[in-house]
Amino acid sequence: MSTSTSKTLLPFSEIEALLARIFVRHGTSDDVAKVLAANCASAQRDGSDSHGVFRIPGYLSTLASGWVDGKAVPRVEDVAPGYVAVDAGNGFAQPALEAARPLLLEKVRHNGIALLAIRNSHHFAALWPDVEPFAQDGLVALAFVNSMACVVPHGGHKPLFGTNPIAFAAPRAGADPLVFDLATSAIAHGDVQIAAREGHTLPEGYGVDRNGEPTRDPAAILDGGALLPFGGYKGSALSMMVELLAAALTGGNFSFDFDWSQHPGAKTPWTGELLIVIDPSKGAGSNFAQRTEILVREMQDAGQTRQPGDRRYRQRAESARVGIAIDTCELEKLRALAGEG
Amino acid sequence: MSTSTSKTLLPFSEIEALLARIFVRHGTSDDVAKVLAANCASAQRDGSDSHGVFRIPGYLSTLASGWVDGKAVPRVEDVAPGYVAVDAGNGFAQPALEAARPLLLEKVRHNGIALLAIRNSHHFAALWPDVEPFAQDGLVALAFVNSMACVVPHGGHKPLFGTNPIAFAAPRAGADPLVFDLATSAIAHGDVQIAAREGHTLPEGYGVDRNGEPTRDPAAILDGGALLPFGGYKGSALSMMVELLAAALTGGNFSFDFDWSQHPGAKTPWTGELLIVIDPSKGAGSNFAQRTEILVREMQDAGQTRQPGDRRYRQRAESARVGIAIDTCELEKLRALAGEG
Repeated sequence: MSTSTSKTLLPFSEIEALLARIFVRHGTSDDVAKVLAANCASAQRDGSDSHGVFRIPGYLSTLASGWVDGKAVPRVEDVAPGYVAVDAGNGFAQPALEAARPLLLEKVRHNGIALLAIRNSHHFAALWPDVEPFAQDGLVALAFVNSMACVVPHGGHKPLFGTNPIAFAAPRAGADPLVFDLATSAIAHGDVQIAAREGHTLPEGYGVDRNGEPTRDPAAILDGGALLPFGGYKGSALSMMVELLAAALTGGNFSFDFDWSQHPGAKTPWTGELLIVIDPSKGAGSNFAQRTEILVREMQDAGQTRQPGDRRYRQRAESARVGIAIDTCELEKLRALAGEG
Repeated sequence: MSTSTSKTLLPFSEIEALLARIFVRHGTSDDVAKVLAANCASAQRDGSDSHGVFRIPGYLSTLASGWVDGKAVPRVEDVAPGYVAVDAGNGFAQPALEAARPLLLEKVRHNGIALLAIRNSHHFAALWPDVEPFAQDGLVALAFVNSMACVVPHGGHKPLFGTNPIAFAAPRAGADPLVFDLATSAIAHGDVQIAAREGHTLPEGYGVDRNGEPTRDPAAILDGGALLPFGGYKGSALSMMVELLAAALTGGNFSFDFDWSQHPGAKTPWTGELLIVIDPSKGAGSNFAQRTEILVREMQDAGQTRQPGDRRYRQRAESARVGIAIDTCELEKLRALAGEG
């Protein structure tokens, strides 16, 4: 393990452009590269270590394997007044969301609620970037994405669910939105990878080894083992709900549906994603952002000093002030990947 | 504690009619009595002990206190193509849902998704009866209801959130729907009341006493103490989301907003409820109920033998076969409450 690490500070635009060049060089279209680079740079900027540039080798590995189409053009379908579907064409989920965003927003503003069902898509990023922009626009958003069979249902013995996060964003009056993004597994897969890399043990109740026995060793979890849902049967029920919403409803794969064994190096779950977006300016809740602010003050008064999303906003502000910190060795590797070594 | 209890078996219609007579005799309209009686009898039928006839004294106490209007007529508002609002008029949430159901269903079938925002309402029942009927009709439903400040936010010291359940229902092909109804508190308030009545201690991590210290004594939780969220910060974030959806969005009270101190005997939280209903026959997920069935088979194969809702359906079938079991002493009390003692 490294004992001293040198960090380089870079502006957002520089990291974003570097990542975009890497994506294009490894087989994505310019459009796809732009969306993925902005997404990944945002995670790095906000201190989401497990979804920042740490993810780049996984992206490139999956692109090289032919498992995902980095040049897919999403096909947006206007299926009902409140219902947008997108066939991501075996590409990434984020460009599919971008392609559908204008129609989705139009429907939300008109109907008060609308749904975006993305299928045939790969989601390899954090989920909060998918909901936060809606709340920045005064809307309330929920997102659900399933992934790959790595979580044992409560009471079961075999991995079946993905880490299946739920993300939620709500506007606040005069402050950044309340945003959470939580894996319904006891721990996110990216955090297990980081713990394994750094040699940390995990708390009890996070996972099992390849024999279904409880383990605190992240390497044993990654080596044929599995995660457990958070919060026992309740987290397991929520994970099941994510499978139904993100896969069954959209027409995407369940987390156990796909077989990537013919694509060595494939890393990205080939599933679906569901977004539900609500316009709170309809109806009696028209002062929604003010009500949110009241709730936040009460939570602070009750002793909950840090609100969901706060740590990201603080890191974001710091990154805007001094630049985004990247490990200098990692930056050299990234430049080499862009052919600029 | 009683050591031998005698049970009487009654058909559903008889319990339902008895409960309706009790409600009317204690100040509700015929319409409200009909809805509440069906709801409460269904919980008794399905073995939901904490939401069956056990709840009747609480209903009558709150009606007697003048805190809730048992004769309220819900006012349904068609606020946008996908958005129905109901002012429950300080009445119960269930009659408000019934009043809005036809318009809500029309909107769901047309738009693919619709929302029902109930405010100025009292919810004193289980939440699963609010979602199950939609899934019986082939729809997917989510419901959120906040209650009364009795849950300490993660990292805080003062109760603020309600038990704030989330309910979900999804159709299965050729089987009863998958339905869950889970409090975002570590335990439902009704179960704490039952544990206190029966003298049981609770597991660790369920609640705190009036000084904010962890306790396993249900009486200490009820006597000025509070519950904890399930699953640590994740359950706490979900509970916060329920406050925002069920209260801020609908225009209802937060769980900490209302003051019932001038209404001794008041038991029912005066808050709001949000339902989101989706028609899966739109878009690519048109085989939704078949996909659900595949997921259920995989869950069974993974060793999860009991699916969400199964226990209720089994008890429901048993009740249909032999009648609904009610403690004979309790039944005598109920008859007395109906003036038929």
